[in-house]
Amino acid sequence: MLNVAGRVVETKKKGNDVAVIVSAMGDTTDNLIDLAAQITDNPSPREMDMLLSTGEQMSVALLAMAVQSLGSKAISFTGSQLEIVTDDIHTKAKIRDIKQAGRVHGAFKDGNIVIIAGFQGVSSGDDITTLGRGGSDLTAVAIAKVLGADLCEIYTDVEGIFTADPRIVSDARKLAVISYDEMLEMASLGAQVMQARSIEFAKKYDVNIVVRSSMSNAEGTLITKEVKDMEDLLITGVTNDTKEAKISVNGVPDKPGMAAKIFNALGNNNIGVDMIIQSASQGSGDNSISFTVQKTDLRKALEITESIAKEIGVKGVSSVEGIAKVSVVGIGMKSHSGVAGRMFSALAGEKINIEMISTSEIKISCVIKLEDVQKAVRVLHKEFGLGQAGGRKK
Amino acid sequence: MLNVAGRVVETKKKGNDVAVIVSAMGDTTDNLIDLAAQITDNPSPREMDMLLSTGEQMSVALLAMAVQSLGSKAISFTGSQLEIVTDDIHTKAKIRDIKQAGRVHGAFKDGNIVIIAGFQGVSSGDDITTLGRGGSDLTAVAIAKVLGADLCEIYTDVEGIFTADPRIVSDARKLAVISYDEMLEMASLGAQVMQARSIEFAKKYDVNIVVRSSMSNAEGTLITKEVKDMEDLLITGVTNDTKEAKISVNGVPDKPGMAAKIFNALGNNNIGVDMIIQSASQGSGDNSISFTVQKTDLRKALEITESIAKEIGVKGVSSVEGIAKVSVVGIGMKSHSGVAGRMFSALAGEKINIEMISTSEIKISCVIKLEDVQKAVRVLHKEFGLGQAGGRKK
Repeated sequence: MLNVAGRVVETKKKGNDVAVIVSAMGDTTDNLIDLAAQITDNPSPREMDMLLSTGEQMSVALLAMAVQSLGSKAISFTGSQLEIVTDDIHTKAKIRDIKQAGRVHGAFKDGNIVIIAGFQGVSSGDDITTLGRGGSDLTAVAIAKVLGADLCEIYTDVEGIFTADPRIVSDARKLAVISYDEMLEMASLGAQVMQARSIEFAKKYDVNIVVRSSMSNAEGTLITKEVKDMEDLLITGVTNDTKEAKISVNGVPDKPGMAAKIFNALGNNNIGVDMIIQSASQGSGDNSISFTVQKTDLRKALEITESIAKEIGVKGVSSVEGIAKVSVVGIGMKSHSGVAGRMFSALAGEKINIEMISTSEIKISCVIKLEDVQKAVRVLHKEFGLGQAGGRKK
Repeated sequence: MLNVAGRVVETKKKGNDVAVIVSAMGDTTDNLIDLAAQITDNPSPREMDMLLSTGEQMSVALLAMAVQSLGSKAISFTGSQLEIVTDDIHTKAKIRDIKQAGRVHGAFKDGNIVIIAGFQGVSSGDDITTLGRGGSDLTAVAIAKVLGADLCEIYTDVEGIFTADPRIVSDARKLAVISYDEMLEMASLGAQVMQARSIEFAKKYDVNIVVRSSMSNAEGTLITKEVKDMEDLLITGVTNDTKEAKISVNGVPDKPGMAAKIFNALGNNNIGVDMIIQSASQGSGDNSISFTVQKTDLRKALEITESIAKEIGVKGVSSVEGIAKVSVVGIGMKSHSGVAGRMFSALAGEKINIEMISTSEIKISCVIKLEDVQKAVRVLHKEFGLGQAGGRKK
């Protein structure tokens, strides 16, 4: 706490107005969840938010005290006090407005460092809400927006965004800058640094984010809007995701609406589907459909798929957990062709079989065998020259 | 938690609308104070309130979950949500108004048991405040008033108000009913059940309080306005207080303003003085002044008194910690004379020396030696017939 306070005071002393958004300390949130679990298996979401929001409230009070103990002025605010208005979907609310940003401006004027509880808001009915996963980052981006801040720094346990996972690729480089769109692809592809929702919000409102380490003073990675220079580099990074599993449905009758039945059923059960491929079996008149879901959703997804399969008369449903997804991401793809070919060739050169492919304007993903994932990331990182000193700079 | 919930649900099922005011669980408040102490010796009161108020917020959320798990509807509110408006004296704020009592009525209408965080409010500037010692009781009485409740039950670790401390007097009786004024005297005289401020508030707004045990279903004691019947009994109870110490100032020049100098200095340093006696030393032209203060204030009070003593040319300052105060309290005194005489005689009969005396309309207090306190309480309890079945009934 005093460590963070020192850092904040330093930033203030450089002449900046500083608002700090804090999440709960260490195990606090888990401990609160445990307390609720001792009482009931099925706590009401409203009361859960009432309970969980105390975690951040403790943090802001303690951090304000820590800043004050270093001789600087500080004041803390809860989400309710700043009227961070959300919808009323408890435990995963969405921010709609921040009505009392004036309190922050007033506190700045009085020379305060402002400490704000992340992750929490208040519904239009004045109930406390929480924002769900990545909620504190989202608060930070939203506050940066309403204050018109120059910069929103996200302090995390990594030094920034890397060209690939440094645990897999020894010469992975930290990126000086990355565009919102690239970061969105990276986020959804398994780079666990920030949740996509915060980046989407930052993109929408043009908030410059710097991701940096809370443990070191190293420069982080700037996440910002796309600039012309970025296209000079073909590929920004290689990501890998080993959290998905594949379900295959074979012998689907070749009639309209078959796929829709399966994916509607999954959607209605809140199971997100990532990649989908459909292929016609030669001459049989049947199709086969394969798709990927989060491993944590696999059991439920299989149950649902099997019950639909029975209904529509399908030959068989199978699943594979031993898969991984590798992807290359880069704005440069928009103006350069041939990336897909180079990617597939590089994988083939290592005898890595590609099971599924999906693409967007700025990324190409391949599903491969889990055991090949490290080899694949390394060869792609090398193929696109990401480890070399010539990579993108700020 | 589930135990309390069970009791609340039971009361609701009898057809009552129930609002429950809760304080923090077990060690929560102490743990929060410890967290602050790890950061600074001198936390800002505003941030301390921000921190401490989380304790009650946790309690209300968990109790609401517990009530819900028993199949009843429940909703929790913080002090801010009900706009329990206070002044801005952090850590010991005073309640001024409760603006959102309508939320409670609305929740009742929806069939809810309403769980309210005690001890906390919100200043007119929308900062979280806490009410200090006895704050949760005060919240309860204030909420009872604005809701127009029939009754405010205070659950505590004793079964009610007794004619004397049952640990000292074996046949002490639990009172069925006591007037606000008597309870105020009892509270300030050392019966630790409720703080005087809550009783004063209840008296002002005519809120009926029942003090009862959270551990048993025994009937408690009703604290209510004075009714004619109460005067039938001369004395309601005997109290003892061993938390005071005595300071004596000898050889004070017999000039106007000497006593004022001493007590102004003590007052300016927030030291409360209880009893004061001043006596002229025979023939010397000097006075001696004795007074009592809380033992916890003794050191500071002595320092201040000694510095004033030097200034005004006093012969000597001394102090005694080994004192106790015994008192008899009863509305009946208003209409009956002779209580003081009976009290002094009873003490004399046990060879107990009286060092100081003070009286109000409904109480007489004597300072005696600490070692005599149990004997004194027993003899007074017996003298006024408090242990007999003939005592005051509801």
